[in-house]
Amino acid sequence: MATRRIAEVLRSGEPNEAIAVQGWVRTKRELKGFAFVEVNDGSALASLQAVLNQDLPNYEEVLKQANTGASIEISGVLVPSQGKGQRIELQAQSVTVYGEADPESFPLQKKRHSFEFLRTIGHLRPRTNTLGAVFRVRNACAAAIHEFFQERGFLWVHTPVITASDCEGAGEMFAVTNLNLKQVPLTDAKEIDYSQDFFGRPAYLTVSGQLEAEIMAMAFSNVYTFGPTFRAENSNTSRHLAEFWMVEPEMAFCDLDGDMDLAEAFLKHIFKTVLERCPEDMEFFNQRIDDTVLATADNIINNQFERLTYTDAIALLEKCDRKFEYPVEWGLDLQSEHERYLAEEVFKKPVILTDYPTQIKAFYMRLSDDEKTVRAMDILAPKIGEIIGGSQREERLDVLERRIKAQGLDPEIYWWYLDLRRYGTVPHAGFGLGFERLVQFMTGMTNIRDVIPFPRTPLSADF
Amino acid sequence: MATRRIAEVLRSGEPNEAIAVQGWVRTKRELKGFAFVEVNDGSALASLQAVLNQDLPNYEEVLKQANTGASIEISGVLVPSQGKGQRIELQAQSVTVYGEADPESFPLQKKRHSFEFLRTIGHLRPRTNTLGAVFRVRNACAAAIHEFFQERGFLWVHTPVITASDCEGAGEMFAVTNLNLKQVPLTDAKEIDYSQDFFGRPAYLTVSGQLEAEIMAMAFSNVYTFGPTFRAENSNTSRHLAEFWMVEPEMAFCDLDGDMDLAEAFLKHIFKTVLERCPEDMEFFNQRIDDTVLATADNIINNQFERLTYTDAIALLEKCDRKFEYPVEWGLDLQSEHERYLAEEVFKKPVILTDYPTQIKAFYMRLSDDEKTVRAMDILAPKIGEIIGGSQREERLDVLERRIKAQGLDPEIYWWYLDLRRYGTVPHAGFGLGFERLVQFMTGMTNIRDVIPFPRTPLSADF
Repeated sequence: MATRRIAEVLRSGEPNEAIAVQGWVRTKRELKGFAFVEVNDGSALASLQAVLNQDLPNYEEVLKQANTGASIEISGVLVPSQGKGQRIELQAQSVTVYGEADPESFPLQKKRHSFEFLRTIGHLRPRTNTLGAVFRVRNACAAAIHEFFQERGFLWVHTPVITASDCEGAGEMFAVTNLNLKQVPLTDAKEIDYSQDFFGRPAYLTVSGQLEAEIMAMAFSNVYTFGPTFRAENSNTSRHLAEFWMVEPEMAFCDLDGDMDLAEAFLKHIFKTVLERCPEDMEFFNQRIDDTVLATADNIINNQFERLTYTDAIALLEKCDRKFEYPVEWGLDLQSEHERYLAEEVFKKPVILTDYPTQIKAFYMRLSDDEKTVRAMDILAPKIGEIIGGSQREERLDVLERRIKAQGLDPEIYWWYLDLRRYGTVPHAGFGLGFERLVQFMTGMTNIRDVIPFPRTPLSADF
Repeated sequence: MATRRIAEVLRSGEPNEAIAVQGWVRTKRELKGFAFVEVNDGSALASLQAVLNQDLPNYEEVLKQANTGASIEISGVLVPSQGKGQRIELQAQSVTVYGEADPESFPLQKKRHSFEFLRTIGHLRPRTNTLGAVFRVRNACAAAIHEFFQERGFLWVHTPVITASDCEGAGEMFAVTNLNLKQVPLTDAKEIDYSQDFFGRPAYLTVSGQLEAEIMAMAFSNVYTFGPTFRAENSNTSRHLAEFWMVEPEMAFCDLDGDMDLAEAFLKHIFKTVLERCPEDMEFFNQRIDDTVLATADNIINNQFERLTYTDAIALLEKCDRKFEYPVEWGLDLQSEHERYLAEEVFKKPVILTDYPTQIKAFYMRLSDDEKTVRAMDILAPKIGEIIGGSQREERLDVLERRIKAQGLDPEIYWWYLDLRRYGTVPHAGFGLGFERLVQFMTGMTNIRDVIPFPRTPLSADF
């Protein structure tokens, strides 16, 4: 008898079909002469209800064993369900319990647990409704990202995790070493003797694959990274992780307009695909976690994003009658309250701000003619705030060198990055998307630690 | 005028179509009154030939600028090619050179460069024919991997890069820290005071995501990882990297037979997809790098893999008339010479060896009833050797605990891994594939450093 995934059975199983399912018991209800067992295999939010009759040869034993959390295989025949809440159910003909879960000690009994508590049992929390839905949506989101780029001829490029350079000259980076930390070798000048370390020099965990992605874009035109990045920031907030995944497309022969077009199409595609593939999970988030997530998704999918310059946005904020906690003034970075005001109250849809002041943005962003602004863009979404940041890159060798020096960085370190402008330079652009932030906003989860399987944060690296 | 990718133009461009292409000059040939310029945009191995006539308004200037490596945009009309080697060519009507490449200093002039030299210019080598083909095949391979699993309902799970545990109890791992290495804080007992480190304990770069993938399989049934893994081994060989990508599927309710079925279907799918999507690149490798790569791919795609036990393989090797450098004896690990003999000379097709001696395999592999062997499997391919290693996992709590202790490991550290056997344990299995090894074997490249964009090896972390 063919074993079938429960998602598929719930969707298209027909009465009289003989099937088997394998999964974990969510609940068991004993009645007179029979019992209901809800089985979940992780393929769907919903479980399949199985009816076990007392004429099963091992009925008593199964009833004793099939507690919440036990693993089970049930073969039988699908029948129309008498109860409400499900279309069909499984009339069991044969039941095997593979592994029990002691009701006294198994932590996931049928009651609400706090997300804080669930983080302490990261090895079991994927079996809960909420985390199950999160990781299905996370997977759909990741698959949609690959599909979006692959369909458009972008190459997935693997930029290095271990790096000797620092993308923005400012990140707080983790060191990677195999020196003996109890006795770090020093040179005669009492400096760390990195010649004895694995890479013969200081090495770190990357904060961004962008600079290397630019290398690849100069050969393949359109590329994207999708990999882990790191921040050694001591930020204990609901929006920071020390290890997170980032998506960074990079396009040769592309200016900021092309960059914005791609980013808008990208976000629409991701939200649309996830709604199509995980409708029950998204409905669940809307009902249980945040009742605006479906409206936010709809807003992103169905509106043309508003595009305006930072300068125009500042003018707009200065003349509005809203009191902000942080001051609004040309040259200052926008705060979340400003960004949300623009997206939620002024335009009521996603907004792309462009052309930020030069001094608040990174050295690699393309300088405008008046040198006051750079060709940067941030996408702000209602309920979300900034979700994507990108720019046209500085492709002019002399300007880039000047900008590197102006920021107190050493052009020597960027020799290969400068070489890209020395040999066959082209206008190019790209953006970055924090993958966990996207999943967080898509699902409405309050804490980013609950949208990644095993979060790494200050003082925490469990599992 | 629509800019089109050169791969698409070469495949389906028709005479009289007005198009534009953007890319980099591979070669320029000046003739009397006109010139040929080959343009490559990375979408294909082949370049598009453009014909520039002297009646172009900027003909002289373009000719001076359009040297090898320069970036260029050419608009014009497709015409049937007079020359051999191409079906169509582009009659230029307008040409823009974006960025020059000084012929005196640009390192990639039209001549053969050694792969050793190309590694020193990792920022430019993707623009060569060979590395271009490698990274297109690498992308096709990666995309095929995601498609294979997504079509089968496997979730892509992101297991942590930074970890406080060590999968096999034996890997050489990189330390991750933000302690001040010049003055590492010590406790009163003169031990490193990890309470002051970012994670409050020793942390490392992962050597495998398997154990965490098992967590996810116990919730979603079928999952896979595809992410970077690390080894701090001081191995300066053509087959070792300190940072490489690994693919690790994990299936609940699956035994070793199911694991082998999946692995065989997986390999066939990957090779088949890459041949379909990158025929010119694969042809190029067969002609220029290794004239057996197409035959090897064909062998993998079209043969049912031979399955036999390690014990039978040893018997076979012992009674054959081949002299091996390393001894053959039950209980010893097989060497590459033995593996290749089996795959290439005995069976002449991929071979799956199963049921290895317990003492040469990891603690988590399922113990057979006689305890002499474990339910492990390795896939050996002709010309390749071992390409996949997997096992059915030990799902019995008491046996697993005993095995952990027998290997001198501390069961306390594996509390959560043991919990998976305590609560709803199921038969489960999985395998691991080194992604760069796969790309290396698929392309026939001699050195693994030439199939990853930015290789990390002892004393080397450039770019």
